[in-house]
Amino acid sequence: MAGTSEPKDHTYPHIQWRGDALRLLDQRKLPGAEEYVTCTTATAVAAAIRAMVVRGAPAIGIAAAYGVVLAAREALAAHGRIEVDLIGPALSELSDARPTAVNLHWAVERMRACLEDGGDDDPLGRLTALARGIHTRDIADNRRMGELGAALLQDGAVITHCNAGTLATGGYGTALGVIRSGIAQGKIGRVLASETRPWLQGARLTAWELNRDQIEVTLICEGSVGSALREFQPQWAIVGADRIAANGDVVNKIGTYNLAVLARQHGARTMVVAPTATIDLSAPSGAAIAIEERAGSEILTAAGYRQAPDALSVWNPVFDITPAALIDAVVTERGIASPPSRQSIAALFD
Amino acid sequence: MAGTSEPKDHTYPHIQWRGDALRLLDQRKLPGAEEYVTCTTATAVAAAIRAMVVRGAPAIGIAAAYGVVLAAREALAAHGRIEVDLIGPALSELSDARPTAVNLHWAVERMRACLEDGGDDDPLGRLTALARGIHTRDIADNRRMGELGAALLQDGAVITHCNAGTLATGGYGTALGVIRSGIAQGKIGRVLASETRPWLQGARLTAWELNRDQIEVTLICEGSVGSALREFQPQWAIVGADRIAANGDVVNKIGTYNLAVLARQHGARTMVVAPTATIDLSAPSGAAIAIEERAGSEILTAAGYRQAPDALSVWNPVFDITPAALIDAVVTERGIASPPSRQSIAALFD
Repeated sequence: MAGTSEPKDHTYPHIQWRGDALRLLDQRKLPGAEEYVTCTTATAVAAAIRAMVVRGAPAIGIAAAYGVVLAAREALAAHGRIEVDLIGPALSELSDARPTAVNLHWAVERMRACLEDGGDDDPLGRLTALARGIHTRDIADNRRMGELGAALLQDGAVITHCNAGTLATGGYGTALGVIRSGIAQGKIGRVLASETRPWLQGARLTAWELNRDQIEVTLICEGSVGSALREFQPQWAIVGADRIAANGDVVNKIGTYNLAVLARQHGARTMVVAPTATIDLSAPSGAAIAIEERAGSEILTAAGYRQAPDALSVWNPVFDITPAALIDAVVTERGIASPPSRQSIAALFD
Repeated sequence: MAGTSEPKDHTYPHIQWRGDALRLLDQRKLPGAEEYVTCTTATAVAAAIRAMVVRGAPAIGIAAAYGVVLAAREALAAHGRIEVDLIGPALSELSDARPTAVNLHWAVERMRACLEDGGDDDPLGRLTALARGIHTRDIADNRRMGELGAALLQDGAVITHCNAGTLATGGYGTALGVIRSGIAQGKIGRVLASETRPWLQGARLTAWELNRDQIEVTLICEGSVGSALREFQPQWAIVGADRIAANGDVVNKIGTYNLAVLARQHGARTMVVAPTATIDLSAPSGAAIAIEERAGSEILTAAGYRQAPDALSVWNPVFDITPAALIDAVVTERGIASPPSRQSIAALFD
């Protein structure tokens, strides 16, 4: 398969399936450099997810699906056949690469079921088609969510956090998909983006990808969120999600909870945009969801510490829990839960 | 005068008066290096304040007072006499070096009055004594505020923002003075400090100076403030101030307003610790106070941008306004306004 075979319907080819390899835009290097990491094994894909070469809940689900195809190719080369037992360790490694986003688990389980349930006829072709289907479908779902979410907007400013854009998905984006659609409809006067410490997804990724679309962005520090709500009076805070509990609690990038509290304080509403694959009906509330903590060095190195001094510890949770009560709408490809609740979330699956 | 003549009662000699020069610890270089900038002219002191070699409302007031002494020395050398008219431009340059902290203006005006009102007998000696008095008095006031503020604490965790410590004052600190006193009294189980983008005063300065005192610090990103309030349940958020309006509104480092909103949401109280020199009775409310905006490059460079892309703007206000209604106590060297209001603030000056 040639490089021209990836889905066309997204602006940046940041996830490229090459038939025998997965090529990933290295998001750690943006905006300074556009470099790619090429993965030819499932283990390499899992390592790329852990290291945040690729990040964003839907994007890592898609990458993991392609990783399963690579595992199947490895099994075929080594054993002459593809069976779940042969790729079991690879499935686990991919599924466990990061703990919080449920899309990873969801994608790997879909691939496993495809292999188990599909019979012996061309399992590699079937797995490849499914991975590409997950990728293509994600982009289509994002466009659908973009339309649904944009319909909720009034004219005015919006504020977003982290990167829930093309780079976090198959393409077009979830929260940034709504913003792209809202801009196309002439509804959005100003896009505020918080830089999103410690990894600076807002400054490095959201600003970069919107800038490439000639969408004006005003970048702020998280410390300015309250002041920006006062100064620019955005109507909506629009964010993605890494996992949504059955009751509508949302786990997303650290800082989302602050934003939702401050938005409510200022009369702005909070919209969460995520595919239903992000909803984990087995988690009754946010409290049931594991919050990944990453190394303190992610915070310390920015301040010029080579290592932590004796009496200095760092708490670096990279996600937080926003209670459903602070969220005005959860926008999915199947419709909107507004306000989110056990009932309105369940109704999305009817 | 020798280097041994600076006030003894502070841990780090970060502001050193040498008789013919002001030696300032370069806070831009911490924690990586402890380097000093030596200023021999008032213009050099103003430049050091603008460039944030020295920062923190009381500290820049003290530095400006010494800067006036240097201006007087320059006048004496050039004209054989010291008069207000001769040093007028230097007074303005020092007073205008940064717009938000009122202490700068307060210190320069005290020095001007000392020169105008004191007669012709040894004006240089008088100015020097006043500058050293402002410095020494600031440390004594901080110790007094430390005792007053610590008396309000219950056992438990506290959270602070930016650096309102020794480095921001003549010594001991305002907010960190209360924390030092509270720790000495065994009342504080955990000190949480937010890193404070964009300049990282929390990570670079607060963590560094408390670490040197063997005071344990847990560093977090601003995005984690809400989650930290939930996880560690601090009883108090304790911060400094750059200017306090007559009605008790507080202007302080960007992010303070977020912290106060989130603290209130979580049942924690907010304490502002600042000398009465920080209170500007001519400002009826926070809305009357100029909020300094600094260059967007302070935010962009951290994300790897050499210059802002076309469609990317940055909003970088470095202070924010916390309404008096969100503040539980303003602790000054003259007593406590709790809750702060036009009446309780005015009563501090009775």
